[in-house]
Amino acid sequence: MIERTATGILPSYLRGAWWTPASATGATQVRDASTGDVVTLVSTDGIDLAGAIAHARTVGQASLGALTFHQRALLLKEFAIALTARKAELYELSKRAGATTRDSLSDVDGGIGVLFTYSSKGRRELPNAQVYLDGPVEPLSKDGSFLGRHVYTRLPGVAVQINAFNFPTWGALEKFAPAFLAGVPTIVKPATPTAYVAEAWVRILVETGQLPAGSLQLVSGAVPGLFDHLGLGDLVGFTGSASTASRLREQAAPGVRFTSETDSINASVLGPDAVPGTPEFDAYVRQLMVELTTKAGQKCTAIRRAIVPAGAVEPLVSALRDRIAERVVVGDPHAEGVTMGPLVSLAQRDEVLRAVGALEAAGGRILLGTTDAPDVTLADGSMGPAPEGAFVTPIVIGFDGAADALPEAVHDVEAFGPVASVLAYRTVDEAADLVGRGGGSLVTSVATADPAVAATLLARTASYNGRMLFLDRDDARTSTGHGSPVPHLVHGGPGRAGGGEELGGIRAVLHHMQRTAVQGSPAMLTALTGVWHQGAASRSDRHPFRKSLAELAIGDQIASPLRRVTLDDIETFANFTGDLFYAHMDEEAAAANPFFPGRVAHGYLLVSWAAGLFVDPEPGPVLANYGLENLRFMTPVSPGDEIRVVLTAKQITPRETDEYGEVRWDAVILNQREEIVAIYDVLTLVAKTLEQPDAVAAASVTVESAEVGA
Amino acid sequence: MIERTATGILPSYLRGAWWTPASATGATQVRDASTGDVVTLVSTDGIDLAGAIAHARTVGQASLGALTFHQRALLLKEFAIALTARKAELYELSKRAGATTRDSLSDVDGGIGVLFTYSSKGRRELPNAQVYLDGPVEPLSKDGSFLGRHVYTRLPGVAVQINAFNFPTWGALEKFAPAFLAGVPTIVKPATPTAYVAEAWVRILVETGQLPAGSLQLVSGAVPGLFDHLGLGDLVGFTGSASTASRLREQAAPGVRFTSETDSINASVLGPDAVPGTPEFDAYVRQLMVELTTKAGQKCTAIRRAIVPAGAVEPLVSALRDRIAERVVVGDPHAEGVTMGPLVSLAQRDEVLRAVGALEAAGGRILLGTTDAPDVTLADGSMGPAPEGAFVTPIVIGFDGAADALPEAVHDVEAFGPVASVLAYRTVDEAADLVGRGGGSLVTSVATADPAVAATLLARTASYNGRMLFLDRDDARTSTGHGSPVPHLVHGGPGRAGGGEELGGIRAVLHHMQRTAVQGSPAMLTALTGVWHQGAASRSDRHPFRKSLAELAIGDQIASPLRRVTLDDIETFANFTGDLFYAHMDEEAAAANPFFPGRVAHGYLLVSWAAGLFVDPEPGPVLANYGLENLRFMTPVSPGDEIRVVLTAKQITPRETDEYGEVRWDAVILNQREEIVAIYDVLTLVAKTLEQPDAVAAASVTVESAEVGA
Repeated sequence: MIERTATGILPSYLRGAWWTPASATGATQVRDASTGDVVTLVSTDGIDLAGAIAHARTVGQASLGALTFHQRALLLKEFAIALTARKAELYELSKRAGATTRDSLSDVDGGIGVLFTYSSKGRRELPNAQVYLDGPVEPLSKDGSFLGRHVYTRLPGVAVQINAFNFPTWGALEKFAPAFLAGVPTIVKPATPTAYVAEAWVRILVETGQLPAGSLQLVSGAVPGLFDHLGLGDLVGFTGSASTASRLREQAAPGVRFTSETDSINASVLGPDAVPGTPEFDAYVRQLMVELTTKAGQKCTAIRRAIVPAGAVEPLVSALRDRIAERVVVGDPHAEGVTMGPLVSLAQRDEVLRAVGALEAAGGRILLGTTDAPDVTLADGSMGPAPEGAFVTPIVIGFDGAADALPEAVHDVEAFGPVASVLAYRTVDEAADLVGRGGGSLVTSVATADPAVAATLLARTASYNGRMLFLDRDDARTSTGHGSPVPHLVHGGPGRAGGGEELGGIRAVLHHMQRTAVQGSPAMLTALTGVWHQGAASRSDRHPFRKSLAELAIGDQIASPLRRVTLDDIETFANFTGDLFYAHMDEEAAAANPFFPGRVAHGYLLVSWAAGLFVDPEPGPVLANYGLENLRFMTPVSPGDEIRVVLTAKQITPRETDEYGEVRWDAVILNQREEIVAIYDVLTLVAKTLEQPDAVAAASVTVESAEVGA
Repeated sequence: MIERTATGILPSYLRGAWWTPASATGATQVRDASTGDVVTLVSTDGIDLAGAIAHARTVGQASLGALTFHQRALLLKEFAIALTARKAELYELSKRAGATTRDSLSDVDGGIGVLFTYSSKGRRELPNAQVYLDGPVEPLSKDGSFLGRHVYTRLPGVAVQINAFNFPTWGALEKFAPAFLAGVPTIVKPATPTAYVAEAWVRILVETGQLPAGSLQLVSGAVPGLFDHLGLGDLVGFTGSASTASRLREQAAPGVRFTSETDSINASVLGPDAVPGTPEFDAYVRQLMVELTTKAGQKCTAIRRAIVPAGAVEPLVSALRDRIAERVVVGDPHAEGVTMGPLVSLAQRDEVLRAVGALEAAGGRILLGTTDAPDVTLADGSMGPAPEGAFVTPIVIGFDGAADALPEAVHDVEAFGPVASVLAYRTVDEAADLVGRGGGSLVTSVATADPAVAATLLARTASYNGRMLFLDRDDARTSTGHGSPVPHLVHGGPGRAGGGEELGGIRAVLHHMQRTAVQGSPAMLTALTGVWHQGAASRSDRHPFRKSLAELAIGDQIASPLRRVTLDDIETFANFTGDLFYAHMDEEAAAANPFFPGRVAHGYLLVSWAAGLFVDPEPGPVLANYGLENLRFMTPVSPGDEIRVVLTAKQITPRETDEYGEVRWDAVILNQREEIVAIYDVLTLVAKTLEQPDAVAAASVTVESAEVGA
């Protein structure tokens, strides 16, 4: 069990060892959000930051560089399993920072979910290699001897991840996972108020003994002079306030990739159709409640502006009032039944109350809640004042007047707590204007069942948003929620939201890599990418279907003899399949078709025959054809024409945890005039050795089927 | 014919009209690079920049917003055709800026080629719509009622394109084409020394009468206070010096997308295997010659550092000396036989000579050429001094000493003219270190026939480069060259090269758009994206193959009855196709396969039957099945099982210039237990009306076949 003491300095994890400053002089006291008791001390006095960065660039780069994407992905799964086993410890520590169990569900389980999703996506969507190919081959010469394509290779430096206090686990892991998968070592710098939670997950990972050397370091405290040490090939990922982001960005040397995700004044629009009594109105109220109270509203993605039809303001506030009365119990998360904890610190509470004051000064009226210190449920279950606790009730603020006359503060002042403004609009265009006036947001949600309303808001406001969520009766119960970034989708937004992009599946991995256009001959591109390119050398020593993954090499090829297609074959196939399309059956009608000279063979006949021409029938290492991609029919085949197929091993992806792997074959069907009839990729599963693998669930054949993250 | 006068002020094109300042007071004189004669005056004194920006944001956004990607793409083709017809005028004007005919081939024809390529790629790779879908659907709930995916929508502002003097046509068009295709209006700001060439191509486009209102404006001169007018939703694309880029970047408000492409100290590595006498050595010399002399070396992508094995320095310099003597004729491009023109201005010449001096001061020795003003071929064909011409001979500079002891100036000082340094290395790792010391480059080329050398250099230096070109005997003659960005591949580079990305096909279009994650129900995503999503409503009123594009809507569906698969069917198919794979033919062997319960039907049988089940045989609007994508076999089909298919219109892409378009169908094969047997997309061509279109060349069926840009 990870515990903290009021007199201990929170350790950093540097160069593979735990480190604390020699003295506590000048250390920051971090206090329990509910009681004010000191939880730990934080200081990095005397830290060797340059040493940590050098360690990442040398040891970290080397150890991660020895692994493939799939191997890194499997480690992420191990980390997720280790955190799952010890998540009670993280929950317990998080309570001291004000997090209820529901809050920790998004922070702790959410963070673990990111690891699971990246582990799964890494193995399904990346090759078992170190270079990622982006987009198709671009032929750059008519004879095919000069080709171009794009590769991603990892950045040669370190990813420094500066996190916000509100999600010490999720916020850090959602940066760490893609960096790790890309092969870039991480230095995590948590925010001081919750650094002890971040220390805990790092400790759990360290204790797995499975972290590649130098792949993860932790700085529990300040990073003085950080930017003096960073240069080309390094990244800084920042989450926090827009003003800090702007200051840090200026310090970054040219060549340092700086990405930021800053709190934004997110909007949630109630459609004109979503009147009280509709499922969309109810879903809107429920969602707004969740966003007001989860993490006590301390979320970059929380709803700050509820944009609703003028007539819906009263019903909305009334519904919220009922719901808050019914469900919100503010107090110390250690107490049973508490549904909303304190803010992280008294300083944050004061900051939020200041922002509420600014909104009031701009004309806002508090419709729900109060700025007075509330009585709350204390740790022992009793009710009472908590003078050292950072408690605030949910606060809803209303504004009078027309939408276009609303004060700037509404779109500009962020109260980073359980606070939202309600703004009235008259037309959907006006609602769109209001969304845009936020100056760029992480997310806007829309509750509507009217596709026209949704389409207008998408067209008018998508460019101001990193994410848009459309809530209707179909998805109201399954929606992951306005405030919840999911690892599959990008998180970040333009303008005020920081301009960065995180998550989004493999997209975030690529943000840690450099895209480079590579030009060369087919043979050279084949050597450089590990993927066979049309025009490179091939080998036809024996049937490639007789080779296990251990023997098979890209370029291994089978070229079949020609086989003549007769009218009889076409009719046989048509009658067998039932595909009596006139282009195959009726000479006159076929000839009238703009694309056919007369009756032609079915495309499916051609690919079926091609399989007959390339397949090796006896049991062997090729286990199954699980799919086919990018099939294009180029030249029609008439009765009397002959076809042959050339099949070449194009890409080999051995699985780390199975006795087989995927082999992608380049298939080309040619006719007797050497014209290309069809091209496609054949996808097969091939055993690693000539021993038949044990029976496994057939379901695992669906290598790229949809899968929802943990 | 576009002509210039020494007393006329070069017009700007603003708000749909040509504009010049009222007075020439304070105007800059732009001089002929060879003779020093004044070509034109440049001034924007009194310009209404705010008005131009507002015009772009309103009129330009509206007119481009009314068009689809394909419609914009077709306009790009019209522009390319118009420029082609009048390119002699651009060649003639360019001579005054020092460009030979070969130089104009890269600038003028290169620029036209960008338009053709974007026109072609826009129609082949983008939908005929306004929203671009990025990546697959991400299921976010187990029941399929909540989905996520990514869309790109255009930015709502203006693209301000600040160009360098060296490529007044190509450099401007390569920024304009992707912005236009994205639907973002452009304001072009050419560099003063060659602004009169840029004015000419803009004039030609204006005179086509086909420019959508507000889609293109031209500022012929300074843009004072530009950044005061820009904000969220606007872009600035800059090409020029790193110092100017850095200054401008700081002026940009948060939310303005700023991308820069700055001159870099590009490297070209001669592999250790590429000794004199090899085709790679010869190719290396030829390429270095081209890069030294094209545009008189005034290219961001030119080779500044020739990195060669220590033993190859002498042979290389000697080969270059011979080649220069043989081929380089320095002079006024108006004279016959001149192969290398002057620099653009005396100021640039002085700048280059200063840089050469700095390299000499750092220890460099001039091995070829001279800093003295050369006698040159004058316009009348005679030889002589040209005191007002900005002439410099090719200069090659050598450095003594070990690679790791070379002065920083080698990697840092850019002589933006016909100047290159030759650096010696001992090991490939040392060569890689030298490449990296450039601090980020647009391009590095490597001449080697050794894949191991190439692989080391790619792994070690790709992250420092936007592009890498591998030259070997296979591609030596077809290579597009070290210094030539191609529209298909990204242009730009990390660090010192500016950190931006241009070109790269559709990638550059997306840089003008905002990626937004969209979450919603299948019905809502279908409405928002124009692409049918599994789970959304469908319509089965009549067979969709009987509907023309005019009648067909996404969601139109045909659901077939079940058809039983017998062992006899499997054997019939096996014998007909020749596909006797044991999984279909041998019960015992099939059952031993980890994925099959016993003998199963061929995947190709299933998709062939599915076609038989969904096809409507009589002539009708569906003209051809031209391909198939993303086929996955999910559940094996045993003898006795039954299958059915559900085919749903998923995406409709009418062609602008043909009587038909593409329809993508979602195909799902199910068994009698409603398990998914296979999923795939069927690609068809469908007529716009029920009239059969005229016969066209069958070759046009190959809608996505490779095509090399003009």
